[in-house]
Amino acid sequence: MTKIAVLGDGSWGSVLGSMLQDNGNEVTLYGNNESVNQEINAHHTNSHYMKNWKVNPNTKATGDLEKALDGAELVVFVLPTKAIRSVSKNVHKVLAQTGATPLLVTATKGIEPGSKKLVSEILTEEIYPNNTDRIVAISGPSHAENVAQKDLTAIACASTNVDNAKKIQKLFSNDYVRFYTNDDLVGVEVGGAVKNVIAIAAGILVGKHYGDDAKAALMTRGLAEITRLGVNYFGAKPMTFSGLAGIGDLIVTCTSVNSRNWRAGKQIGEGKTLDYVLKNMGQVVEGATTVKAVHELAQEKNIDMPISEAVYRVLYKNTNVDEEIKEMMGRSPKPEIRL
Amino acid sequence: MTKIAVLGDGSWGSVLGSMLQDNGNEVTLYGNNESVNQEINAHHTNSHYMKNWKVNPNTKATGDLEKALDGAELVVFVLPTKAIRSVSKNVHKVLAQTGATPLLVTATKGIEPGSKKLVSEILTEEIYPNNTDRIVAISGPSHAENVAQKDLTAIACASTNVDNAKKIQKLFSNDYVRFYTNDDLVGVEVGGAVKNVIAIAAGILVGKHYGDDAKAALMTRGLAEITRLGVNYFGAKPMTFSGLAGIGDLIVTCTSVNSRNWRAGKQIGEGKTLDYVLKNMGQVVEGATTVKAVHELAQEKNIDMPISEAVYRVLYKNTNVDEEIKEMMGRSPKPEIRL
Repeated sequence: MTKIAVLGDGSWGSVLGSMLQDNGNEVTLYGNNESVNQEINAHHTNSHYMKNWKVNPNTKATGDLEKALDGAELVVFVLPTKAIRSVSKNVHKVLAQTGATPLLVTATKGIEPGSKKLVSEILTEEIYPNNTDRIVAISGPSHAENVAQKDLTAIACASTNVDNAKKIQKLFSNDYVRFYTNDDLVGVEVGGAVKNVIAIAAGILVGKHYGDDAKAALMTRGLAEITRLGVNYFGAKPMTFSGLAGIGDLIVTCTSVNSRNWRAGKQIGEGKTLDYVLKNMGQVVEGATTVKAVHELAQEKNIDMPISEAVYRVLYKNTNVDEEIKEMMGRSPKPEIRL
Repeated sequence: MTKIAVLGDGSWGSVLGSMLQDNGNEVTLYGNNESVNQEINAHHTNSHYMKNWKVNPNTKATGDLEKALDGAELVVFVLPTKAIRSVSKNVHKVLAQTGATPLLVTATKGIEPGSKKLVSEILTEEIYPNNTDRIVAISGPSHAENVAQKDLTAIACASTNVDNAKKIQKLFSNDYVRFYTNDDLVGVEVGGAVKNVIAIAAGILVGKHYGDDAKAALMTRGLAEITRLGVNYFGAKPMTFSGLAGIGDLIVTCTSVNSRNWRAGKQIGEGKTLDYVLKNMGQVVEGATTVKAVHELAQEKNIDMPISEAVYRVLYKNTNVDEEIKEMMGRSPKPEIRL
C-alpha cells in the first residue's frame, strides 16, 4: 500500500484518485473547493464533475495541502496548467519542512503562458531543481468518463529515470487501464499540450463538410508539425509522437464529439466568429489559448507549423478559412518526414 | 503532358486515372472487363464501381495491354494483389519488345499469399530485377469516393530514388490532393497491407461496446505492432508509420463505417461467426486473409504482434473475444517504444 496525494479533485483527479485507491493504495484528494471535498467525504460522489459515479469510499478529500502531503510517497498533479506553479511553490514549502522527497506525477496537459514551460519543467524548477528524475508524466487517450466506466484504456508514463516510470506503471495499472513506460518525459507532455489546436482545425474541416480522408490527413500532418515542435523546441524524441501521448490522444481529441475544441472549430467552420463561439461554449476552449503560445514558439525557433499558424490566423487575424485551405494545399511540394 | 497507363479500372483505378487526365496527362485505363471498358469509352461512367460520377471524357479504356502500354512513360498498378504477379509478367513481355523503361507506380496495398512479398518486391522481381529505383509506391488515407468528390486528400509517394518520387509528386498533385515524398518504399507499403487486421479488431471493440479511449488505444498499439513488423521483417524505417501511409490510413480504416473490415469485426464482436460474416458481407474482407500471412510472418521472425495474433485466434481458432481482451490487458508490463 502506497500513500498517495492527488492534487486536484476535478473529473480526472477524482477518477484517477479513486482508481488508485481501488488498486490498493491510500489516497487523499486535495482541492480548494470545500463543498466538493465535503461531498466526496460524506457521500462519496463528485456530482459537479462526474454524474452517476461513486468515488471509492475510502478515498479522503481535503483542502489542507499539508494534510494531503503528510506521509505521501507519491504526489499526483491533476490541476489546471495555470495553477501548477503556485501550488508547486506551496508543495515545495511543505516538503522542505519534513525533508520528504516523494515521486511527482503530472497528469496536467499544457504549456504555461509567458514562460512557455511544460508542467514537468515547472515542477523541476519549483520542487526538485536540476533533477527531473523524480518526475513522471502520464498522458494518453483517457477521458475521465471512460476510465470511470472501466473502459479499456492505455496511457504512457514517462520519466528520465526508467525505474521511476516503472514504479508508476506498476502502481497505476489494473485490468482495464494499461500503462506503458517511456523515457521521453517532455515528448510525452508536448502532444497533450498542443493537440487541442489540431482539434480546432479538425472541427473546422467538419464544419466545412470535408470528409474522412481530409480529417485523417489533417491529423497526420498535424502530428508531423507537433513532432517538429517537440523535437526542435523541447528536445523530444520523434518516435514518442507515434505513441499514446501523441497520435493516441490526438485521435480521441479530433474524433470525439465531446471535445470542446473540436466543437468550437466546427462552429467556426460553419461561419461563427471566435467571440460568438467562446461566449456560447460555456467552457474553456484550451486550443484557442494554446494556439497563441504555439504561434510564438514556432516564430521564435522558425518551426514550420502550417496548420497551427492557419488556426491562429483564422482565430485572431480574421482570415478566411477557404483561403487558408487553398493556401495550404498550394504550398511548395514537401517530403513527408521533415524534423 | 505525360502518357500514362493505369492498370485496373475499378473504383480507385478509374478515379486516379481520371484525376491524372484532369491534371493534364494522357491516360489509358487497362482492365479485363470489356463491358466496363466500353462504358467508360462510350458514356464516360463506371457505374459498376462509382455511382454518380463522370470519368474525364478524354480518358480511354482498353482490354489490350500492349495498346495501354504503347508509349507510356508511367505505368500505375491499381490491381488486386493476387493479379499483380501475372500482369507484371505480361507487362515485362510487352516492355521487352520495345525496350521501354517506364516508371512504375503501385497503388495496390497487399502482401502476396505464399511468397509474402510486397507489391514493389513483385514488380522488382518481374519487371526491373535488382533495381527498385524505378518503382514508386503511393499510399495514404484516400477513398476513391472522397477523391472523386475532390475532398482534400494527402498521400505519400515513396521510392528508393528520391527524384522519381518527386516526379510522381509533381504529376499527381493538384489543388485537392497533395502528395508528400518519402524514401522508404517498403515502409509506405506495409501500413496499407496490414491495416485491415487492426480494423477488424477496432470493429470487434465497437461490437463489444467499448468506447473512444479503447479505440484510440487499439489504433496506437496496432500501429506499434505494424511498425515492428515493418522494421523487422521488411526493413522499413520506424518514422514512416507515423505518416500518411501508416497512421493516416489506419485512422480512416478504423473509423469509417464504410470499411468492410471494420464492419466484419463489429459483427464478430456482436457474437457472429466468421463463416456467417463472410457469407453475408457480399464483398471481400481483406483483413481476414491478411491476418493469416501476418500470423506466419510474426511467427517466422518472432515479432510480438499481440493484437494481430488475437484477431487470428478469434477468427481461426474460435477463441473467446472476452478472454483474448483479458489476456491482452494482463500481459507483462511493457515499454511503449519497442522495435
